[in-house]
Amino acid sequence: MRDALPHYTCACGRSYVPDAARWRCDCGGPLDLAAVPFTWRPRSTEEGLWRYADALAVPSLGLTLGEGLTPLIRASPDGDPGLLLKVEYASPTGSFKDRGAVTLATVARLLGAERVVCDSSGNAGTAMAAYAARAGLRAEIFVPEGTSAKKVQQIAGHGAEVTVVPGSREDTATAAAERVERTGAFYASHVYNPFFHDGVKTYALEIFERLGTAPDTLVLPAGNGTLVIGAYLGFAALRDAGLVDRVPRVVAVQAERCAPVAAAYTAGAREVTAVRPGRTAAEGIAIAAPVRGPRVLEIVRDTGGTVVTVSEDEIAAAHAALASRGLWVEPTGAVAYAAVSGLGTAPGEVVVAPLCGSGLKASL
Amino acid sequence: MRDALPHYTCACGRSYVPDAARWRCDCGGPLDLAAVPFTWRPRSTEEGLWRYADALAVPSLGLTLGEGLTPLIRASPDGDPGLLLKVEYASPTGSFKDRGAVTLATVARLLGAERVVCDSSGNAGTAMAAYAARAGLRAEIFVPEGTSAKKVQQIAGHGAEVTVVPGSREDTATAAAERVERTGAFYASHVYNPFFHDGVKTYALEIFERLGTAPDTLVLPAGNGTLVIGAYLGFAALRDAGLVDRVPRVVAVQAERCAPVAAAYTAGAREVTAVRPGRTAAEGIAIAAPVRGPRVLEIVRDTGGTVVTVSEDEIAAAHAALASRGLWVEPTGAVAYAAVSGLGTAPGEVVVAPLCGSGLKASL
Ligand SMILES: Cc1ncc(COP(=O)(O)O)c(C=O)c1O
Ligand SMILES: Cc1ncc(COP(=O)(O)O)c(C=O)c1O
Ligand SMILES: [Zn+2]
Ligand SMILES: [Zn+2]
Repeated sequence: MRDALPHYTCACGRSYVPDAARWRCDCGGPLDLAAVPFTWRPRSTEEGLWRYADALAVPSLGLTLGEGLTPLIRASPDGDPGLLLKVEYASPTGSFKDRGAVTLATVARLLGAERVVCDSSGNAGTAMAAYAARAGLRAEIFVPEGTSAKKVQQIAGHGAEVTVVPGSREDTATAAAERVERTGAFYASHVYNPFFHDGVKTYALEIFERLGTAPDTLVLPAGNGTLVIGAYLGFAALRDAGLVDRVPRVVAVQAERCAPVAAAYTAGAREVTAVRPGRTAAEGIAIAAPVRGPRVLEIVRDTGGTVVTVSEDEIAAAHAALASRGLWVEPTGAVAYAAVSGLGTAPGEVVVAPLCGSGLKASL
Repeated sequence: MRDALPHYTCACGRSYVPDAARWRCDCGGPLDLAAVPFTWRPRSTEEGLWRYADALAVPSLGLTLGEGLTPLIRASPDGDPGLLLKVEYASPTGSFKDRGAVTLATVARLLGAERVVCDSSGNAGTAMAAYAARAGLRAEIFVPEGTSAKKVQQIAGHGAEVTVVPGSREDTATAAAERVERTGAFYASHVYNPFFHDGVKTYALEIFERLGTAPDTLVLPAGNGTLVIGAYLGFAALRDAGLVDRVPRVVAVQAERCAPVAAAYTAGAREVTAVRPGRTAAEGIAIAAPVRGPRVLEIVRDTGGTVVTVSEDEIAAAHAALASRGLWVEPTGAVAYAAVSGLGTAPGEVVVAPLCGSGLKASL
């Protein structure tokens, strides 16, 4: 089964047969996946992401908590029929990270790993803890100090070992990577491991299946860019298969107070320079030095999109507007919606924005 | 559209044309619905419950938050393939109550109501607040004192007015009913209003659609019995339409510390006597005087099922066992699963138990 996995590739030209200990290129860069066959054949008999097994790089082991097939609803029953929200929080662990966690846990099993390591202050950590438990893998989750007791309780409830790391989010990542290097554990990183993006591709596949076409615009929150990259890969695969005629324009949204990708975009740069982050309610996308920032920039430019920022007030207003229509998101989950009104969309334009994380996880 | 609604009926023989102010029979008893046409034609083009619009008593106004179509997964990837869990917490507000809230909010709109009143300490209250907001209805939610600040914040976030009532759960219900009587508001009660059960029917329809047949056994938590009654009605409709040959046996599960229906069942009674409840972690089913208890008894007997109780230790153990397999429920959400191992199922028997509420709402 492990032979069924595509190779890792790097922009520097190197490529690698996946193995449990490999998590980045020898050049230090993040890895991508070599192209894989894509067949459009949703299987209504399969639970979870495996509905799209024929379109994924990761072969199914049947591992699932029922992720995916999230609702696609109108933002407001009486409002613009072209503004659609994908309710990603109606997901087993309450965020879209389940899409990538299920493929990562599957890959860990295929590569014979027994232990996985993950660093996350939030949704990725709870998702990985849940899917590792489901897969019978031991998990060690590194979280920054200040992570809420409730989240730690959930992660521990799934049987994972929790290590609280003093310092910044980056210090947590460093501690996790060190543990990986020392122990040879599988690094279940949504930042580095491209099999995570492979699962997130299904965000695009579901939208296509539901609409029968590609929307005009995808508005997507961007921290490390897993959703931007995953959604792009999904629509690019649909385009290459001749099922849609183009990838929707991708509008990436960052919090004004932590906006390294937006700064690079505005400056016309190809590289992303780390910023000193301010405090933002959108903690899920407060990534000061995004490893895959250049890829996000490239996607935005290739699709004729843009990168925009939203202020704390705009995030709070979007959170309240969603709640007043029955939608309960965590602050990061309001970010994409917060950006929509500023886009100046054309009449008839179809725009899809995700509600990425549940208000039951964290509120304003 | 209001003409499209079936009449209310009562066991005493009376029947009524639904109107916004009517919430029980003149005899004091709870109302049911007259039979409605049932057509099995799932619509893949509709979001939420309206997939089953042709099978429901409530006509669609298109109101939805994307409820329903919840996953049906194996309890454990390596365990008994016949033991299936329906992940009801992967729902917009985190519990199966969304299924009934969407039909109730729709009926309120059809009957021209502008205000709805609801009493609930928990999942029904947050669901009604969310769906009322979605429907543009003003909502007033009565909660018992001691309800967590977080729940009150969510209900208020949806724009509902929250009234905290001193005393017991029953005092809260009394206060809500008084407000309804005084103001003529629509009583959006999952206990009294049978249109709530109509939405919950979809629990059964989804299981049927997924399996292509009826399972042998449904294990269901029972407080007020909305899930027991709704699931029964769904399978009964499928049976009457000739699509399945029988309704699965219904095993109703109560918490040992608050088990009025179990006591009546054991005593061979048709009526249910109120109990003095002890403290149970399964707060969602701690109903000391269930209005529709006799109906639950009848369903259990008609289907060859039973009523069982689970102890606090069994609930805690089930919660931990589910978490160790990646499933994060609130304590009430572990109750059905807690009962499964005691059932002594036959080899090959197909058993479905719901995970009713999210662990993000309340944990042990
Ligand atoms: C709720 C929510 N939205 C959006 C994101 C952004 O994802 P990414 O950092 O991969 O861009 C995250 C990441 O944790 C998140 O938790
Ligand atoms: C999580 C959960 N499970 C089960 C139930 C039981 O539903 P009922 O009281 O209608 O039997 C409830 C009701 O609130 C609930 O919140
Ligand atoms: Zn390289
Ligand atoms: Zn009567």
